[in-house]
Amino acid sequence: MNRIITISREFGSGGRTIGKKLAEELGIKCYDADLIHKIAEESGFSENYIKDAGEYTPGGFLSSALANRAFGQTNEDYLWKIQYKIISEIAEKESCVIVGRCADYILNGKADLLRVFIHADMDFRAERIVKVYGEREESPEQRLKSKDKRRAAYHRFYTDMKWGDYKNYDIALNSGKVGIDKCVEILKSLY
Amino acid sequence: MNRIITISREFGSGGRTIGKKLAEELGIKCYDADLIHKIAEESGFSENYIKDAGEYTPGGFLSSALANRAFGQTNEDYLWKIQYKIISEIAEKESCVIVGRCADYILNGKADLLRVFIHADMDFRAERIVKVYGEREESPEQRLKSKDKRRAAYHRFYTDMKWGDYKNYDIALNSGKVGIDKCVEILKSLY
Repeated sequence: MNRIITISREFGSGGRTIGKKLAEELGIKCYDADLIHKIAEESGFSENYIKDAGEYTPGGFLSSALANRAFGQTNEDYLWKIQYKIISEIAEKESCVIVGRCADYILNGKADLLRVFIHADMDFRAERIVKVYGEREESPEQRLKSKDKRRAAYHRFYTDMKWGDYKNYDIALNSGKVGIDKCVEILKSLY
Repeated sequence: MNRIITISREFGSGGRTIGKKLAEELGIKCYDADLIHKIAEESGFSENYIKDAGEYTPGGFLSSALANRAFGQTNEDYLWKIQYKIISEIAEKESCVIVGRCADYILNGKADLLRVFIHADMDFRAERIVKVYGEREESPEQRLKSKDKRRAAYHRFYTDMKWGDYKNYDIALNSGKVGIDKCVEILKSLY
């Protein structure tokens, strides 16, 4: 079985950066934007559409989820299946880091997993999204809350697991307190 | 400000063992049974009584909490105050490890804290309590669930924080997956 590090993270916590650095140091691949590309290629949907769909529950954010489902499979359901298939194939092929995309759930029992959750205080994340992503909104806090909510709802919808629940992770780190480089070091030592 | 490591833990996860080993390696004190002694001395209650009270919400496990409170301060409220005072005094006096007793909440803002949560899968914990504590019950799982529930309820009652919620910790570790010695090593490197 390949050894896979899955990273779930709060928006702005640096989880993606940690995943990339970690993979680099371990000499394995980090799937993130790459993964989205692959999904796009296979599904025929545009890349931007998929990027959005990853953070919305079927049929728009919660509101019309059930209504749309009455008419059968939504686009998001279709994407979920492709995503599921691609992540399973990657895990069979190689050891790697996978950021987001419910990989922890999808690969449960199918790979030797190290399940990581990265979070940080609101202040740390607000400062970081302004600096890293150049967000210019008046209230980065509002944006963070909305993003977290969507990730949690998406995760819950497709996996029935509570996003952020300690029971689902082998290690959870506060990147604001621990520091991004130290997070990388600890995870590396655990691999 | 003194540097304090607070360890909250699921029953049977080895959190107390990790705390002791960590303190030993860092050359600082670990407060746990010692702390209970101190509380006992100051309160005049017997040690066993206090040990139990630490895992019950006021007036018995939830059921009669409000009823008893109508008549004023319960014994558990009294103990909480003493505990609060003793933990605050310890933190002013020295850097140390404190296991359990809501120290993370009590010391918030009063010390340089590293807030740790230790958990593990049911199987790991069930095997461990039989081996370490010599528990002979037919269903260690039942005992674990009941213990966790009480710790969570106690914590919630006095701190209004959700026990085990990742937001309240700087690092959460699955001791069953990571291993007890490795947990000690990681925490040591963070101190």
